[in-house]
Amino acid sequence: MEKITKILLSENEMPRQWYNIMADMPNKPLPPLNPATGKPVGPEDLSVIFPMELIKQEVSTERYIDIPDEVLDLYRTFRPSPLYRARNLEKALGTKSKIYYKYEGGNYSGSHKANTAIPQAYYNKMEGVRRITTETGAGQWGSAMSFACNHFGLDLLVFMVRVSYNQKPGRKLMMNTYNARVVPSPSTMTAAGRSVLEADPDSPGSLGIAISEAMEIAAQDPYTKYALGSVLNHVILHQTIIGQEAMIQMEMAGDYPDVVIGCFGGGSNFSGISFPFLRENFVNGKKTRLVAIEPASCPKLTKGKFTYDFGDQSGMTPLLPMYTLGHNFIPDKIHAGGLRYHGAGVLVSQLRKDGFVEAKAKFQRECFEAAILFARSEGILPAPESSYAIAGALDEARRADLEGVSKTILFNLSGHGHFDITAYEKYFEGNLPDHEATTEEINQSLVNSAVPTF
Amino acid sequence: MEKITKILLSENEMPRQWYNIMADMPNKPLPPLNPATGKPVGPEDLSVIFPMELIKQEVSTERYIDIPDEVLDLYRTFRPSPLYRARNLEKALGTKSKIYYKYEGGNYSGSHKANTAIPQAYYNKMEGVRRITTETGAGQWGSAMSFACNHFGLDLLVFMVRVSYNQKPGRKLMMNTYNARVVPSPSTMTAAGRSVLEADPDSPGSLGIAISEAMEIAAQDPYTKYALGSVLNHVILHQTIIGQEAMIQMEMAGDYPDVVIGCFGGGSNFSGISFPFLRENFVNGKKTRLVAIEPASCPKLTKGKFTYDFGDQSGMTPLLPMYTLGHNFIPDKIHAGGLRYHGAGVLVSQLRKDGFVEAKAKFQRECFEAAILFARSEGILPAPESSYAIAGALDEARRADLEGVSKTILFNLSGHGHFDITAYEKYFEGNLPDHEATTEEINQSLVNSAVPTF
Repeated sequence: MEKITKILLSENEMPRQWYNIMADMPNKPLPPLNPATGKPVGPEDLSVIFPMELIKQEVSTERYIDIPDEVLDLYRTFRPSPLYRARNLEKALGTKSKIYYKYEGGNYSGSHKANTAIPQAYYNKMEGVRRITTETGAGQWGSAMSFACNHFGLDLLVFMVRVSYNQKPGRKLMMNTYNARVVPSPSTMTAAGRSVLEADPDSPGSLGIAISEAMEIAAQDPYTKYALGSVLNHVILHQTIIGQEAMIQMEMAGDYPDVVIGCFGGGSNFSGISFPFLRENFVNGKKTRLVAIEPASCPKLTKGKFTYDFGDQSGMTPLLPMYTLGHNFIPDKIHAGGLRYHGAGVLVSQLRKDGFVEAKAKFQRECFEAAILFARSEGILPAPESSYAIAGALDEARRADLEGVSKTILFNLSGHGHFDITAYEKYFEGNLPDHEATTEEINQSLVNSAVPTF
Repeated sequence: MEKITKILLSENEMPRQWYNIMADMPNKPLPPLNPATGKPVGPEDLSVIFPMELIKQEVSTERYIDIPDEVLDLYRTFRPSPLYRARNLEKALGTKSKIYYKYEGGNYSGSHKANTAIPQAYYNKMEGVRRITTETGAGQWGSAMSFACNHFGLDLLVFMVRVSYNQKPGRKLMMNTYNARVVPSPSTMTAAGRSVLEADPDSPGSLGIAISEAMEIAAQDPYTKYALGSVLNHVILHQTIIGQEAMIQMEMAGDYPDVVIGCFGGGSNFSGISFPFLRENFVNGKKTRLVAIEPASCPKLTKGKFTYDFGDQSGMTPLLPMYTLGHNFIPDKIHAGGLRYHGAGVLVSQLRKDGFVEAKAKFQRECFEAAILFARSEGILPAPESSYAIAGALDEARRADLEGVSKTILFNLSGHGHFDITAYEKYFEGNLPDHEATTEEINQSLVNSAVPTF
């Protein structure tokens, strides 16, 4: 191949199985606990809100799990996704390092969320479910789920975090176009929402609150189940197709990453691109570093505590062993709505605890600067979430240059920012602060947050 | 190959030359005329506003023209573009026909406009130009040109048609992100704009007016040139990469189109996908139909007159032999801003006159209905412009089913609608009329429009 810019795979080169890191982790994660009994939850505890096939995947230790044909059929409309060599970005930086990015924004939903929306809708449909409820932050997950549910003939109700609902009206309309109903959260539809609104009628909402609302509705009806867009093991499993493709593509490029980077909300896009490379570390003695970039205003991996905590705001989920800021933590209203989550998924938390995952927190202005440099050089307008990964990649390149070495850097460009353009507007107007809250408010909210200890 | 959903080409399968239909047309188009002398314009007449290389391409009769390496390098970041078999749309329709679409919305600009923006910026840069002025309707062309100019180190000033400027604020912000300056047109910056505003301070603007403004600025400074996003021969030349790729991809799919469809503004995306297939009609006896779909409120191909007319509102361009509604025609404020142009490019006009191109006019509500059916089945949210092509494809499939036959239909999905989502909002609110003006107003504006006769 002459000068490689992007590496494409054909449909028949697409992996037919998801990779399950559970099979290769040195220390398996602690079990989720039933908060009432303090004992590990069983499948029956979860079957109220999830279909059985996803519960099986949640606890599976099989290394590879087959992707159903119906899911592969829809994957084929947008997968394999391209891997790019960021030649123009490298030039703009003047770096000696090689920067690659896997672009997950080219599908209908505009982000990696489609990778798990499709199997989740599929398994629910197969088990006779009629309606799904879910949460969404910036709306990428909600969009992904809307199309998937419509495709498989399921109704969908989306609780969209209020601050994002107001910041990104286009996302709501996109979900409507795909036939979904969208409600700003906290809402008056649920007890969870009403209790938040009583305490703070102007609550901006959070993913934790929206999850509580969606779960509450799902628990009321046997034909309604709940779907989660990140955090859980089965979600991360579905996202590993990203890293498996990237592995083939890097080989085609004749390269191998020294570092793999993803932005970090609950962990799904980060895990999706990095876990297949982590397996190579575990099994084949590779030394690739995994770096998660989280918002400074929602710093669970860098400032949170590893403990059992709820996955949602009102305590409806099992207790999960994870890095958390406390399930009551209300993150600052940054534009990267998808990163406004108080905890880290169980798998990443265990791996972080065991020293296999690095983490770094960044303020949003630096990330927007990175996003604009990226847009002007590579063309693609990144989602605010993905801008954290870009900023992380720039750090790695700059550090390598200072050290006089050349690194191979791979990051996940998890989505496009076409529906987040008002954030860019604020930036150009000089009105995009590092965070909306003051540092004192942020510190106070960390102190106030309820990290339970068991 | 098992079940084909999309057909990808690798970078080294990308065509290295553009195809020039001028070489194969039975009747060459009439020459553009200097309005002052009534004589054919020469290169020197055009050199005030265009670089010489583009002027050469404008009049070239060479069949194939080499794509420069610097252009190929940037093309590689998004080309070859995918060709899809619309299996889910076929299923939703229950049609026996096969529907394929070439998707040009996957690049940075979100439309086919990048294909000509890049070479236009490149040739200008090579000839020492420092600044470019241009017009844009819905903003796809402006976005495409913004990134291209920034890449090659050129300043860009965009006159954006006012109605689109107000309808689609995201597009302006995207152009700003790519470093361009954007002014709503008609503006007070130019004599052309001021004279329109004097007559109608609330003028919604039109592509014709915006072209006048951009040309007026370019004509004032030797280091400033003007770039046009459609209509002209060199623009259409650059877009033929679409059809050339589609030809290879259809062959890989083991199919050949009975009909090729594109939406129609000035003609560039329609010509880009269809001209390579038309060559097969001319040279190899194929019988593919070419169908252009235009808005009922801007129906130059179906209701316009074939005559010499200006390409812009205030009469700054040479007189072009084309189907036109008159250069003073102000189209209704439909959401497909890119189709609001009074004339058809010279090449398409001649081919239409000679019976090689069919045309059909459609109202916008039918096109939005087609777009929503498409989004729900195929996932991609189409640009309002592209929705006209979809509606045209649905017509063909339905007609074939009525006739009991199966056709192979190929259309150009010229762009995505992520920045046009307010149009979808209006549709869902029940507020998207077929046209904003009344039928009487439209007929009156057709009567009032100034089609000159020479």
